[in-house]
Amino acid sequence: MSQDVSPLETARLSYAPRVPPLLADGAGHVAFREGPATGAAGHADEIRARFPRTYGRGILELGPGVAEGRGPVHVGVALCGGQAPGGHNVIAGLHDGLLAARPGSRLTGFLGGPRGILSGRYRELTAQDLAPYRNTGGFDLIGSGRHKIETASDFAACRGSCERLGLNGLVIVGGDDSNTNAALLAEFFVSQGVGVTVVGVPKTIDGDIKGRGIEVSFGFDTATKIYSELVGNVCRDAKSAAKYWHFIKLMGRSASHVTLECALATQVNVALIGEEVRERGLTLDQVVGQVADVVRRRAAAGKSYGVCLVPEGLVEFIPELGRLIDALNRVLAEHASDPSVLSGAAERGSFVGGKLAAGDRRVFAALPGGIRSQLLEDRDAHGNVQVSRIDTEQLLILKVAEQIEGWRQAGEFRGTFSAQGHFFGYEGRSAPPSNFDADYSYSLGRLAAILVASSKTGYLCAVGNLARPARFWTAAGIPLTSLMHMETRKGLSAPVIAKALVRLDGAPFRAFAERRDDWAIGDRYRYPGPIQYCGPSTVSRGVNETLRLEREKI
Amino acid sequence: MSQDVSPLETARLSYAPRVPPLLADGAGHVAFREGPATGAAGHADEIRARFPRTYGRGILELGPGVAEGRGPVHVGVALCGGQAPGGHNVIAGLHDGLLAARPGSRLTGFLGGPRGILSGRYRELTAQDLAPYRNTGGFDLIGSGRHKIETASDFAACRGSCERLGLNGLVIVGGDDSNTNAALLAEFFVSQGVGVTVVGVPKTIDGDIKGRGIEVSFGFDTATKIYSELVGNVCRDAKSAAKYWHFIKLMGRSASHVTLECALATQVNVALIGEEVRERGLTLDQVVGQVADVVRRRAAAGKSYGVCLVPEGLVEFIPELGRLIDALNRVLAEHASDPSVLSGAAERGSFVGGKLAAGDRRVFAALPGGIRSQLLEDRDAHGNVQVSRIDTEQLLILKVAEQIEGWRQAGEFRGTFSAQGHFFGYEGRSAPPSNFDADYSYSLGRLAAILVASSKTGYLCAVGNLARPARFWTAAGIPLTSLMHMETRKGLSAPVIAKALVRLDGAPFRAFAERRDDWAIGDRYRYPGPIQYCGPSTVSRGVNETLRLEREKI
Repeated sequence: MSQDVSPLETARLSYAPRVPPLLADGAGHVAFREGPATGAAGHADEIRARFPRTYGRGILELGPGVAEGRGPVHVGVALCGGQAPGGHNVIAGLHDGLLAARPGSRLTGFLGGPRGILSGRYRELTAQDLAPYRNTGGFDLIGSGRHKIETASDFAACRGSCERLGLNGLVIVGGDDSNTNAALLAEFFVSQGVGVTVVGVPKTIDGDIKGRGIEVSFGFDTATKIYSELVGNVCRDAKSAAKYWHFIKLMGRSASHVTLECALATQVNVALIGEEVRERGLTLDQVVGQVADVVRRRAAAGKSYGVCLVPEGLVEFIPELGRLIDALNRVLAEHASDPSVLSGAAERGSFVGGKLAAGDRRVFAALPGGIRSQLLEDRDAHGNVQVSRIDTEQLLILKVAEQIEGWRQAGEFRGTFSAQGHFFGYEGRSAPPSNFDADYSYSLGRLAAILVASSKTGYLCAVGNLARPARFWTAAGIPLTSLMHMETRKGLSAPVIAKALVRLDGAPFRAFAERRDDWAIGDRYRYPGPIQYCGPSTVSRGVNETLRLEREKI
Repeated sequence: MSQDVSPLETARLSYAPRVPPLLADGAGHVAFREGPATGAAGHADEIRARFPRTYGRGILELGPGVAEGRGPVHVGVALCGGQAPGGHNVIAGLHDGLLAARPGSRLTGFLGGPRGILSGRYRELTAQDLAPYRNTGGFDLIGSGRHKIETASDFAACRGSCERLGLNGLVIVGGDDSNTNAALLAEFFVSQGVGVTVVGVPKTIDGDIKGRGIEVSFGFDTATKIYSELVGNVCRDAKSAAKYWHFIKLMGRSASHVTLECALATQVNVALIGEEVRERGLTLDQVVGQVADVVRRRAAAGKSYGVCLVPEGLVEFIPELGRLIDALNRVLAEHASDPSVLSGAAERGSFVGGKLAAGDRRVFAALPGGIRSQLLEDRDAHGNVQVSRIDTEQLLILKVAEQIEGWRQAGEFRGTFSAQGHFFGYEGRSAPPSNFDADYSYSLGRLAAILVASSKTGYLCAVGNLARPARFWTAAGIPLTSLMHMETRKGLSAPVIAKALVRLDGAPFRAFAERRDDWAIGDRYRYPGPIQYCGPSTVSRGVNETLRLEREKI
C-alpha cells in the first residue's frame, strides 16, 4: 500500500535550501552597518510618540565581520494569520541559524499563534521535530492564529510567558497585523526593561507587505504559481471547448497583487484590479459594463469563451459597495441583538435595508438576492464582512448575463454567454513552497536567528536582491516603525504597518495595462504549468512576474 | 516582458515521449498475432446481429515481424468529448508513426469533433503544425465536440467527407460514446465496401473505459494527479487552520474512479464512492448520516476540521435521487413547452412538483431550495440534468449542518462545524500531461498509426503493462465489439461500449475500504504535491494508485 509520505514530499525533505553566503555562516561572521535614521510610512510624529524607544533607528545592513555576543540563547517563535508556503522553513532556518551561531541554543514554538504566547502553550522544537517539516507547506507544525495582542493584560501575559520560559528572543512570523503586534511588543519590552528581542518575518500570500526594503513577503511566489497553473489550465480548457466564460475569484482581500500576478503569468482576457476600480471610482454597473463589453467583442469575433480574474476583495474596492458594506457593518453592530437581525435571512434583510440611507439602500436593492444574504452573514472577529464568503464571481456572472440579455433583446448581441465560476484560495496557501519560497523563507529564518542572537529588537527581516540567484541576496533588518502609519481601527486611531496596494504607476500594473487590450480579444493565453523543483533553472528557479518587473526597474 | 510561451511549456515541447521498442519502429517491423474469437461485454447475440461484419474477431497482439502493405496513406483524426491531458500527443504519435511506417503519408484533423467529420471541416496537420502542441494539454489544436453519429444521413455524410478527402483511415479519439461511434462507422464502412479503416483511442479523465485489455484511458493519470495535488494542499490547510471542513466535488459523472484515486492518493477523512452508495441502496439521509458521524467523532477528538470528497455524479447514484432525476427528466421533456416550465424557478418548481409521484415528491420537497432549482435547470443535449451544475458539495454541507444542529440541540454534539465547498474539474482536464500520460498517449497514437496503416478496422488501441516502465509496454488492437453491450438510450435499445464502474471487489476499492476507518479519525493526510517532469523516477514517473493496485493483482 502507498506510504503515508508521498514520493515528492520525501524528496523535498532532504532539499537543502540555498542561502546567501552571509546567512549560511550564522551569526559568527557578520556585522551590522546602520544606515541613516528612518522615519515612518506616515504620521511620523504620532508614530514617534507611540514608539519613543524604538523609533527612528537606521536600517541594519549585514556584512562580513565579527559577531556581537556569546553563549546559547533561547528563542520563541509564533506563526500568525493565514498560512503561506514557507512557514515551516522560516522555523527550520531559525533553528539552524541559532545552533550555528550559538551552539546549545534552544527554540520553542508557541502553539496556535499569538494565543499560544498569551496562554503559554508551546512545544520545544528540536532538529528531530523539524526533520519531517522541512520544505513542506502548511503551518501544522505549531499551528497559527489571528488573535491580536492589544490590551495591557495581553502585553503582561506575553511578558509572563517569555519570562517563565527564560526567552532571549521572540520571532513573529506574520502579515501587517502580526508585525504591528511585533512592533508594539518590542517597544513594550524595551520600555519595561525586559530583555526579550522581538523580530518580525514578513509573511502573506497576498503580497501586501512590500516596499521600504521589503521586496516581497514569503508565500506569494508559491501561491500565485499554483493559481497561475490552474488559471492557465482553465484558459486552455476555455479555448479548447470554446463554449464557456470562466470567472475566477482569487484570494487577496486588501490588495490585488495576486490577481495582477496571475494575469501577467497567464494573459487572461480580463482581470479586474481593485485599486484601479477604486482610483477611477467605478460603480458596479461600470465594472460589469467593462467585462460585458469584452464578452460582446469576443462574441463578435466568434469567440463565445474567455477567462476573467476577480480579486476576492473587489466588492470593497467598488466605492458604492465599499460604502454599503461599511453601512451594513455599522447597522449590524448597532442592532446585533435585535430579534430581526437574529432571525432568518429575509427578515434580517428587510430590517437592515430599512436602516440604510437612501443611496446605500438603492445599491443594496440592486444586488441579487443571494449576494444580499451573503452581505448580511456573520461578521468576523473584527466586525467585518467575510469577503471570501461572498460569491463575487457569481455576482459578476449574474450581472454580466443581465447586461448581455439586454443587448440581445436590443439586437446588439449575437452568440452565447455561458459561464462557470471558480474560487482558488485554500489550494494555494498551504502548498509546498517553490524553490524560491523554500530558499527565501529559510533565509529569512537564518536572518531572524542572527538578529535575535545579536539582540536587535523591533526589526523586520529583509532579504533582498531576490530576482537574482540566492548567492547574490542581501540581508538587513528594517525598523518596524519605519513601515508604520496611523489608521482608524474600530473607531480609534492606531499605529499599524501600512498595507502595500497595487500601484497604478508601478511596473507590474503598467505592463498589464499596456497589453490587456490585446489579451482581451486575441487569445494570448500562457500556460505556466505546475511548479517544478528540478530541471533547467528557467523552469525550476524562475521568479514571479511581479518581482521580476519591479526589480528590473531598479 | 514575459514570453507568450511559458518556460515549462517551452521545455516540454522538446520532450521525447518514451515508447516501447515495437511502437518506436513504426509499422515496418511489426506483425499481428490474432487471439481467439471475442464475444461482447453483454447481449452477445444482439451485438453480433448489429455488427455482422466486425463482430467476433480476436485481439490483435503486436510483435516483431514484417509489415503488411506499402505506400503512403492519408488518415483523418478527430478529438471527441471532454478534454483529457494527452490528446495532442495522440495526434503527434499518429503523425510520427504514419510518416515512419509509410513515408509520404498525410494526416488531416477534423475540426470540432464528430461535427467536423459530418460537415467536412478540417485542416492538414504537418510536423510544423504539431511542433507547438507536443506534450501540451487541451484539445485546442483541432477542437472537440460531443456530437453523436447516429442517423443514416450522418453515416452518409461521414462517408462523403472521407471519400472527398481520399482517406484511407479515420482515428476517433474519445470516450465510450465516441468509440461506440467508431464501432458503428467501422461496421458501416465495411458493409458499404468503403476502404476507410476506423480505429479508436480510449480517452477520458473519468477512467471509465477499462477492462477487457484496456488498463486505463489516457488523461486519468494527469487529471487525478492535479486533483490529488489540490486535495492534498487543502488537507494541509485544514489541518493547519483546524477550523474548517472542506467538501470537495470532483469530476466523474458515471463512475467514481477519480474520487477513489484521489482518496487513495491523499488519505482524506471521508470519500463517498457512488457505486458503493448504489450497491447498498443508501438514501440521502443515510449518506449524510455517515458523513455527519465522522464529523461528530472527529469533533469529540478535538478536531473541528476535515476533508470529504464527493464524486460529481453522486446524486445519480443515490437511488431515491436517481429515480427523482429520471422523473424530473420525464416531466420536463413531456411539458417542455408548458408556460409554467418556461417561467421562473418558483413556478416551474411547483408545477413540476405537482406532476411527481408521491415518493418522488417527498424526496424533492426535502431538498434545499437552491438544489431544487438546479435540478430544474436546462437539460443537456441528451435531455439529462447537468450534474456538474448541481452543487452536490453544498447539498451535503447543508444537510450535514442540519444533522449536527439536531445533535447539538439534543446535547449530542459539542464543537463547531464550519464548511467550505470546492469543485475541482476544469483545472485538471486541460492540464499538461504527466510524463506517464505524455508517453502513453503518444504510444497510443503510434499504435493507431500501425493499425490504420495495416487496414485493421474496428479496433480500439490498447497499450498494456502500464505499471512498468515504457520499454516493457505491450501493444494490441481490441475489437470494439468485444467491449459492447445493449443499453436503453432515449427509450430505445442501442449497442454501446459498457462503462467500467468502480468494482467493490476490485483492489483499489478494497485498499480504500480497509483503511478508511483509520483515515476518518486519525490525520493520515498524504500530500502528493505538483506533477514533476524531472528528478528521481519515484517523483517524475510514478503511476497513479488505481493502476498500481490493479496491476499488482495480476
